Amino acid sequence: MPIPAAAAEALAALLGRRFSTSGADRELHGQSESWHRAPPPDAVAWPETTEEVAQIAAICQRHRVPLIGWGTGTSLEAQALATQGGLVLDMLRMDRVLEIRAGDLQTTVQPGCTREALNQELRATGLFFPVDPGANASLGGMASTRASGTTAVRYGTMRDNVLALEVVLADGRVIRTGTRAAKSSAGYDLTGLFVGAEGTLGIITELTLRLHGQPEEVAAAVCGFPTLEQAVECVTATIQSGIPMARIEFIDADVVRAFNRFSGTQMHEGPHLMVEFHGAPASVQSDAEAFGALAADFGGTGFDWATTPEARAALWKMRHNAYRSCLALRPGATAVVTDVCVPMSHLPAAVADAAADIRAEGLLGPMVGHVGDGNFHAQILVMPGDEAELAAAKRVATRMAERAIAVGGTITGEHGVGIGKLPLMRAQHGEAVAVMAAIKQALDPQGIMNPGKLVPGVN
Amino acid sequence: MPIPAAAAEALAALLGRRFSTSGADRELHGQSESWHRAPPPDAVAWPETTEEVAQIAAICQRHRVPLIGWGTGTSLEAQALATQGGLVLDMLRMDRVLEIRAGDLQTTVQPGCTREALNQELRATGLFFPVDPGANASLGGMASTRASGTTAVRYGTMRDNVLALEVVLADGRVIRTGTRAAKSSAGYDLTGLFVGAEGTLGIITELTLRLHGQPEEVAAAVCGFPTLEQAVECVTATIQSGIPMARIEFIDADVVRAFNRFSGTQMHEGPHLMVEFHGAPASVQSDAEAFGALAADFGGTGFDWATTPEARAALWKMRHNAYRSCLALRPGATAVVTDVCVPMSHLPAAVADAAADIRAEGLLGPMVGHVGDGNFHAQILVMPGDEAELAAAKRVATRMAERAIAVGGTITGEHGVGIGKLPLMRAQHGEAVAVMAAIKQALDPQGIMNPGKLVPGVN
Ligand SMILES: Cc1cc2nc3c(=O)[nH]c(=O)nc-3n(C[C@H](O)[C@H](O)[C@H](O)COP(=O)(O)OP(=O)(O)OC[C@H]3O[C@@H](n4cnc5c(N)ncnc54)[C@H](O)[C@@H]3O)c2cc1C
Ligand SMILES: Cc1cc2nc3c(=O)[nH]c(=O)nc-3n(C[C@H](O)[C@H](O)[C@H](O)COP(=O)(O)OP(=O)(O)OC[C@H]3O[C@@H](n4cnc5c(N)ncnc54)[C@H](O)[C@@H]3O)c2cc1C
Repeated sequence: MPIPAAAAEALAALLGRRFSTSGADRELHGQSESWHRAPPPDAVAWPETTEEVAQIAAICQRHRVPLIGWGTGTSLEAQALATQGGLVLDMLRMDRVLEIRAGDLQTTVQPGCTREALNQELRATGLFFPVDPGANASLGGMASTRASGTTAVRYGTMRDNVLALEVVLADGRVIRTGTRAAKSSAGYDLTGLFVGAEGTLGIITELTLRLHGQPEEVAAAVCGFPTLEQAVECVTATIQSGIPMARIEFIDADVVRAFNRFSGTQMHEGPHLMVEFHGAPASVQSDAEAFGALAADFGGTGFDWATTPEARAALWKMRHNAYRSCLALRPGATAVVTDVCVPMSHLPAAVADAAADIRAEGLLGPMVGHVGDGNFHAQILVMPGDEAELAAAKRVATRMAERAIAVGGTITGEHGVGIGKLPLMRAQHGEAVAVMAAIKQALDPQGIMNPGKLVPGVN
Repeated sequence: MPIPAAAAEALAALLGRRFSTSGADRELHGQSESWHRAPPPDAVAWPETTEEVAQIAAICQRHRVPLIGWGTGTSLEAQALATQGGLVLDMLRMDRVLEIRAGDLQTTVQPGCTREALNQELRATGLFFPVDPGANASLGGMASTRASGTTAVRYGTMRDNVLALEVVLADGRVIRTGTRAAKSSAGYDLTGLFVGAEGTLGIITELTLRLHGQPEEVAAAVCGFPTLEQAVECVTATIQSGIPMARIEFIDADVVRAFNRFSGTQMHEGPHLMVEFHGAPASVQSDAEAFGALAADFGGTGFDWATTPEARAALWKMRHNAYRSCLALRPGATAVVTDVCVPMSHLPAAVADAAADIRAEGLLGPMVGHVGDGNFHAQILVMPGDEAELAAAKRVATRMAERAIAVGGTITGEHGVGIGKLPLMRAQHGEAVAVMAAIKQALDPQGIMNPGKLVPGVN
């Protein structure tokens, strides 16, 4: 349903040209990085202040217009798509770093600020913000999907690194959650509730984040393994032995093939681990040696150390480009991306079963993983329009999710639910889904905040 | 109001002698470790299974009987007292360690299991559960108050160490929250919501916890400082410099006096820091040296190293007995215990202002603190029955809380709200209190779960 005229008038009066129903603006906010497709939103707004967001919410609530937050639109489960129409709220203009409190290891930012922009501003302070989902996502979007990525094994996810929020509720009320203290026992953890809520409970207008000291020394390396099983078993052994990894990423032979083709590398086309160590020089040295010894036990060979900052940047850039490189393995393809996360002891079987399943369905599904957390992705390449192939990819994705649930894992370690994982929520959570629905109903009784996402059966 | 006869009959039929209305049983569950007093509950029940807890909740809901969880009753803000009457649910008989999954660094326990019992069972595994609130509290109670303690600076609080829960809701439904994976983005963080909820949203019947490897090397020491300001400024500098402390505890001159009198020590009666380092031998060595150099900058002297496990155990036992030793400084006294937590840069002023305020009111209030988190306690000694003294102690506590709020801190870092911090919740959270109330209302519409605690203005 298009936006009621009265609502459009009120929004235009409030925002002027920062409210748009033009086809171009709508199209830009109807894109998705994965296979999900939806019609563009009915309109787009670019607020500049919390007060404007509050007024927009009040207008949307009055006229029952769906309100969907938008950071950089990189979420992979259609979270930011207006699947039921409505207004997309693009946070681009609220992108300032408001305050850096170096002595408290904290910063306060607006939600449209991206992680790269934040780290750029932090450079001179000796501090950095570690959460790194590859994409240069917005901090509001990252908080909303509970993002993590390559460094979570050491520094935690957005759950661990968001201290406080300012949030606009569905009815336009503005609340503050959390504090600037390192911990608090003062009531329900509302910060934790809005982190990962995918904009279904409110719009985040400010975030207070934990910062970390830039490590004195950093060492990174790539190492090849004879088989996928050996690579993943090496990860499990590494984590169990307590070596404090800053990053430990798995890439399979298909990903290496994509790197060789599109990043100009000449790596052996087998499974690899990409690792990084942070700390004082002595501990980096001893951690790296301990890992090297373990890797050798599992047949690891050909350690390639990235010693300069430039070489390390190139290494992680290659890793961050994995998604696009793999898409390019099959020109024109899009991807069904899986995101299971399992307890460490179940990781080797989970990865091996996924690989076998993809092969058995005759699909191409390169695999990468933040395996130090037990989290990995198959990026199953599908041709738009080929319904049979899409169905096969979804079957594989569903079986991976079901196997993860069976061993106590999760259907999504970091990408979130959106509409893609919605059909699996009951299988994972059972009756707890009703509690999520009750919370949604309590905070957004009209169901205007990103309707149809995250909580099954509510809108 | 006493428990309706029909409810009492149903409970007796379900539990037999594990349901009691005897005066002795009720008295035992009407005690508090701090100054709070309330009449004993109307009855006590000792469930043995989740199914029994579910049936008890259903009975209580049907008859509108308040239901109050009880772990070991060590909470300091009257959380476990039946301030509105009702049934206390003592989790003592649900105290088993159900499973240790060493390879996943996880355990699943029943809520009545205490942290010491758990660590006893873990001894042979090389793993331990780090959260240490001093008291030998139950893990269900610790989760419910979002407890932390001396090791949180390194290993986090209960928020960080609870992965999954089984919870009985007010109407008797049983849900499972969270997973056994290291992270998850699958919907609202219900685990985080029940952790710290003080039993106002449901009864925890099972917890899955993160475990940590026992450190290869441990070193602990006590070090004296000329002034309180220098001791606390040393803490701030230590945290800002990134030295990975496993523990860093502040004790003031009054606490040392209590130690000397009741633990047989002969320490200089001035402010001290008690510190501990965990890790590989080389890093423990270099961390300890880095701290030693910093401490010297702030006038630290007389480093006393506890090198043997026995000496370390004695050190932390003394620290854990601080509460009782300080009470003994004034025989017959009870205590108003403050618990503010502030951003690190505000810690020196917060501690100094508190000390000055206690002095100005003519009170005796020994101070200890988990200062690595910015958290510290004044244990203000008051004589039962001396209303003027109690009022003065509460004034000091309120001003400490107000100053903490003013610098972005929290009124309670780890003890929780109960009834003691209830009047300060609005000052800290503003409109967010209404969101907490909406959640409480959504999950416990009849208001039977620990009514009158945590959320102001609900019951
Ligand atoms: C190539 C590629 C690699 C990726 N790798 C990873 C990875 O390694 N780890 C990982 O965790 N993720 C990864 N992702 C997923 C993606 O980057 C994350 O989901 C990201 O956190 C989303 O941020 P965004 O700014 O793009 O948010 P959007 O996609 O714009 O929005 C995400 C969700 O948040 C809501 N939202 C946005 N802003 C707000 C706000 N201010 N208030 C309330 N709700 C809001 C939206 O409505 C939507 O529901 C990857 C994506 C791509 C394309
Ligand atoms: C000497 C002393 C020192 C202390 N030092 C610290 C410290 O350093 N750090 C710290 O964090 N705390 C400290 N405390 C406070 C105390 O130990 C904690 O609050 C503890 O976490 C409570 O655990 P418990 O088992 O005693 O819970 P109880 O006191 O029995 O209950 C606490 C709350 O949890 C609820 N509850 C209990 N079990 C359940 C359940 N299964 N499901 C739902 N709700 C439940 C109760 O209803 C109540 O609201 C100290 C206390 C004392 C007496």
